[in-house]
This record gives sequence, C-alpha cells and structure tokens, in this order.
Amino acid sequence: MYGIQQLNYEYDNIFAKILRGELPSERVFEDEETLALMDIMPRADGHVIVIPKTPARNMLDATPEQLASCMASLQKVSQAAMKAFNSDGITILQANEAAGGQVVFHLHFHILPRHKGVELRSPGSDIEKPEILKANADKIREALKGYGVHHPNPECE
Amino acid sequence: MYGIQQLNYEYDNIFAKILRGELPSERVFEDEETLALMDIMPRADGHVIVIPKTPARNMLDATPEQLASCMASLQKVSQAAMKAFNSDGITILQANEAAGGQVVFHLHFHILPRHKGVELRSPGSDIEKPEILKANADKIREALKGYGVHHPNPECE
Repeated sequence: MYGIQQLNYEYDNIFAKILRGELPSERVFEDEETLALMDIMPRADGHVIVIPKTPARNMLDATPEQLASCMASLQKVSQAAMKAFNSDGITILQANEAAGGQVVFHLHFHILPRHKGVELRSPGSDIEKPEILKANADKIREALKGYGVHHPNPECE
Repeated sequence: MYGIQQLNYEYDNIFAKILRGELPSERVFEDEETLALMDIMPRADGHVIVIPKTPARNMLDATPEQLASCMASLQKVSQAAMKAFNSDGITILQANEAAGGQVVFHLHFHILPRHKGVELRSPGSDIEKPEILKANADKIREALKGYGVHHPNPECE
C-alpha cells in the first residue's frame, strides 16, 4: 500500500554509518537485533534512540520482527532511564517521513525521560558536549547493569 | 525495576470502559489482541489510538506480546491512514505516566497523520464532532479494506 518509491533505504544515513562503525556513538545497550545510543541533540537529559541493526526506512516498511525487537529494547532502556534519572515519566516519539518529523531515514524510536513541569527542548537544538552525553550514558548503563541485561562496555571496545 | 506502586492498573479508565462496551467509540480496526479507535480530541485529522485489549498501564509494564501486537496494528492502521488522508508522514506518540504526557492509564499509541507544513494541534483541544470522526473513520476503514484486513463494521454492531 505504501508507495514503493518512498521505501528506498538510504545506506548513507547516519545510523547506517554508526551501525557499520564509520561514525562514533555513545552506546548504552545492544542485543542481536537492536542498538540503543544517546541522541547527540538531546531534547531531555538521557534522550536515547533505539534502532534495529537491519535496514528499515521507518515504521511503515519495518518487519514485525524489527518492530517487536525495538519495542523490547525500548522498554528495557526506558525502565533503566526511569531509574537512572529518577524520572517521573517517559515520552516515546517515532517519526515517519519528513512531514512526520523524520530526519534520519533509518527506523528509530526516541526515549525521552521526563520530569514534572519540565518541557522538552525543541528538536534539532544544540549538540550536547561529549562528556555530558557520556556521563548520562554511564548512568543508563549502570541502571541496565542492575537490570541484568547485556550492555556494551565502552572500555572493552 | 519500575516502582510497583506505579504499576496499578485502574479498571475504570476510559479505554477499559470502551473495551468493556460501557462507553461508545469510533472503531477502525481490531484483531484478537488490539483495538484501534478514533481519538475524540484529534491533534490531526485521522488521529487514531491503538490499545491492547488486555490490561497494561503503559509501555513500562506491558508484556512483549502486548507491545508487539500493538506495533503490528499500529503499522497496518498507519499505512491505511497514509492512503486515507493522502498523508505525507505519520508521527507516533506514546506517553508513560503523567510527566510523560499520559492522561489515560491504559497503554496506548497515538497515530498522527501528517501533511507538509501542518502543525499538530495542542493535546486536549476541542472534542471533534461525531459526524466528522465517523467520516474520517470511514476513510480509514475503507483503506484497510483495500489492505485486506479485518475491520469492525459499525453497521453490524
């Protein structure tokens, strides 16, 4: 149903490059199917992105397996982010096509840890300092450790 | 990990009442696990909500099966909404706890059909006229028909 011309997967998108190791990223979690990394333009402290390791342009052309594995990781990382940032809630955002807010054309889900009375920052705001991204990533990795799930150890990479 | 006191499922939330048939709704799709219905305060024309038929407070306490089945329905209805409204994109929103934007405490995903240059209306805006909700629901049901999936026929209810 969905126009085939829109289904083109662009292999030079930044998440594809990150998955191929051609670009650095602050990774907080991964399993066989998915990767979770810090958004470099966080709309909230602890803003994480979950992506499948296999190509999908967005939710509209993804397989049921890609969607299910992303959701499983989304839940794990969201629970860890609740603990890591003592959050009051989580907002999930997932954008499809430019009009839907999509900028990078590899399926991704945004995890936005929320605190009462704190608004989200605008999309595409400032690039966060690497040391702050790393400090926030450390908090999430630590919370995931308590949760007993595998997480990438940057010191072993 | 997630505080058990927050996991309380409230059986008197409006989606639970809709699922029990105690409140009316404009349904566009259902299968064994999920139901898709029109949001009565649409932030965009064709704003649909997908919920599991079984209890879950939100994404944080949902089962992998609930999340996977919601995603499958989310994709079907999103593809239909793209066609039904000649949309340029889809935004998915999913809120967890009040600070995350959650108002009804039964897991739900928002499907927001988007058009270039058209902003979303604010959450909690005006209640849509029933005849407009029905007309938009009819468009989605028609698009789902072409897609070959089961959808509720309001005339048979």
